[in-house]
Amino acid sequence: MADGARVLLPFDLADEAGGDWPFGLRVDVWDGTGPAPEGDLGDVRLHVLPYGAPCAYDALPRLTGLAVVQSLRAGVDELLPLVPDGVTIANGRGLHDASTAEHALGLILAAQRELPRWVADQAAGRWDPSFVGSLADRRVLLVGAGSIGGAIARRLEACEAVVTAVARRARPAEGVRGVDELDALLPAAEIVVLVLPDDPSTRGTLDARRLALLPDGALVVNVGRGTAIVTAALRAELESGRLRAALDVVDPEPLPADHPLWHAPGLLLTPHVGGGSASFPPRARRLVIDQLRRFAAGEPLANVVRP
Amino acid sequence: MADGARVLLPFDLADEAGGDWPFGLRVDVWDGTGPAPEGDLGDVRLHVLPYGAPCAYDALPRLTGLAVVQSLRAGVDELLPLVPDGVTIANGRGLHDASTAEHALGLILAAQRELPRWVADQAAGRWDPSFVGSLADRRVLLVGAGSIGGAIARRLEACEAVVTAVARRARPAEGVRGVDELDALLPAAEIVVLVLPDDPSTRGTLDARRLALLPDGALVVNVGRGTAIVTAALRAELESGRLRAALDVVDPEPLPADHPLWHAPGLLLTPHVGGGSASFPPRARRLVIDQLRRFAAGEPLANVVRP
Repeated sequence: MADGARVLLPFDLADEAGGDWPFGLRVDVWDGTGPAPEGDLGDVRLHVLPYGAPCAYDALPRLTGLAVVQSLRAGVDELLPLVPDGVTIANGRGLHDASTAEHALGLILAAQRELPRWVADQAAGRWDPSFVGSLADRRVLLVGAGSIGGAIARRLEACEAVVTAVARRARPAEGVRGVDELDALLPAAEIVVLVLPDDPSTRGTLDARRLALLPDGALVVNVGRGTAIVTAALRAELESGRLRAALDVVDPEPLPADHPLWHAPGLLLTPHVGGGSASFPPRARRLVIDQLRRFAAGEPLANVVRP
Repeated sequence: MADGARVLLPFDLADEAGGDWPFGLRVDVWDGTGPAPEGDLGDVRLHVLPYGAPCAYDALPRLTGLAVVQSLRAGVDELLPLVPDGVTIANGRGLHDASTAEHALGLILAAQRELPRWVADQAAGRWDPSFVGSLADRRVLLVGAGSIGGAIARRLEACEAVVTAVARRARPAEGVRGVDELDALLPAAEIVVLVLPDDPSTRGTLDARRLALLPDGALVVNVGRGTAIVTAALRAELESGRLRAALDVVDPEPLPADHPLWHAPGLLLTPHVGGGSASFPPRARRLVIDQLRRFAAGEPLANVVRP
């Protein structure tokens, strides 16, 4: 039991946590937009990091009695060196799944149904309907079969697409193929969706040689990290009109105003907004409530990435 | 059995119908883009109408021995007076479900995730991310719970939206509410999706009074028929900035170039392209193959709307 333990949170949860809040804990709130709270923080046992705030890591050096750091991000690489060994780190795995997955779906539907063209026609007051592509029936190759990939697959399947998922290692029981089969799978992919983290093994996954394996007219979608695609190689395929693309992430990021990728034909580009939607905050708050309840009860925490 | 019977189809099906094609039938193909075939057509027993072709109905008067007319449209009102009593009429119910449903989803996602704004930013070479809305968690009121409505609901639920469906009559076993509850349901709807046919009972379903029941910022989506919304009333709500809309159908249609609706703020408009996508032809062909197989075997046909 952690009865009476002090916790430092980025938001108050009294309105939604239910009648037994604060589960016997002592709660301080600090949202990370300004300096950390004054006074001694040495008795704070659990700290939920403010998300996307300018001073997010500023309290850490003063939290000398810490047992748990909860991040609301999926990736905690930059957090690891800031937290002493022996302090448990939990991440925000899953919090961005719904947001990123629906952004991927929105990009795919916008490209298949030619929404940018209708936006231009609307601005011109032009009623000029024509037959368009569809997502239904399309063969979609999903590269990256983690939790966001799974959320994308469920949405694609509800849209009657035919999904094949690829992960680092094959998982035959789930029908997930290994990345060693990627070259063999690309020629049948009408849409390829990348949901890969940035690491040495994923950089340049879609290079000129692999892009050339895609069939004419295929749509390349990226909602993971921009480095998974060789930008110049994709741009060449777009300029030739052979492939189409819908990208929420690019390399480099932010894309400079004078970069030629902005104006490549057949490209729909959004500025890395996949994860940041209204579906994130309620999921983050539910996770924190659940973790605090576990912490207060002395139960194992979810999403532990370093014990 | 209809062995040896003659049928007139808008497309050939030899490549996809399987080894027993043409099921003992005699097949003629006419796509409706030019005059009907020459010679006696009096022995044609089943006719599949060409879809969206200029001469679609031109063969009918010469088909004096007809037993079955298969339309590929959902609505057959204009066909009824052209076909003598005693000739069975089957419709294309379901063929447009996937196409229209995914267009509805694309419109909703484009509005929630602000795709028109990213399209404009891309044209300007501007990388300016910000937090956007979501479809996940939104309370969606789906007005029209037929087969297209069901296809939309499945997609919305895969996107983690909270869907309430309304039909002419309540169907408590399916959780479908009756249209008499519409006024009571609108105040909680963050997104309202209309999928209604055009008939006297549906015209003006969303008038000024009902639009005023929607909460501030709600999104109005229409993929059924434009007459379900009182255009001037919706335009007033858009001009005031209180509501948003994403419409594939409007009243009047086509929308004249100088109509003020084109440039209403917070509106995304597509020119009635929901049903016409690449997912329609394969579904139409599968239906026709199935119907011909039934016809040849003397089995009851599917989708009969007039025996």
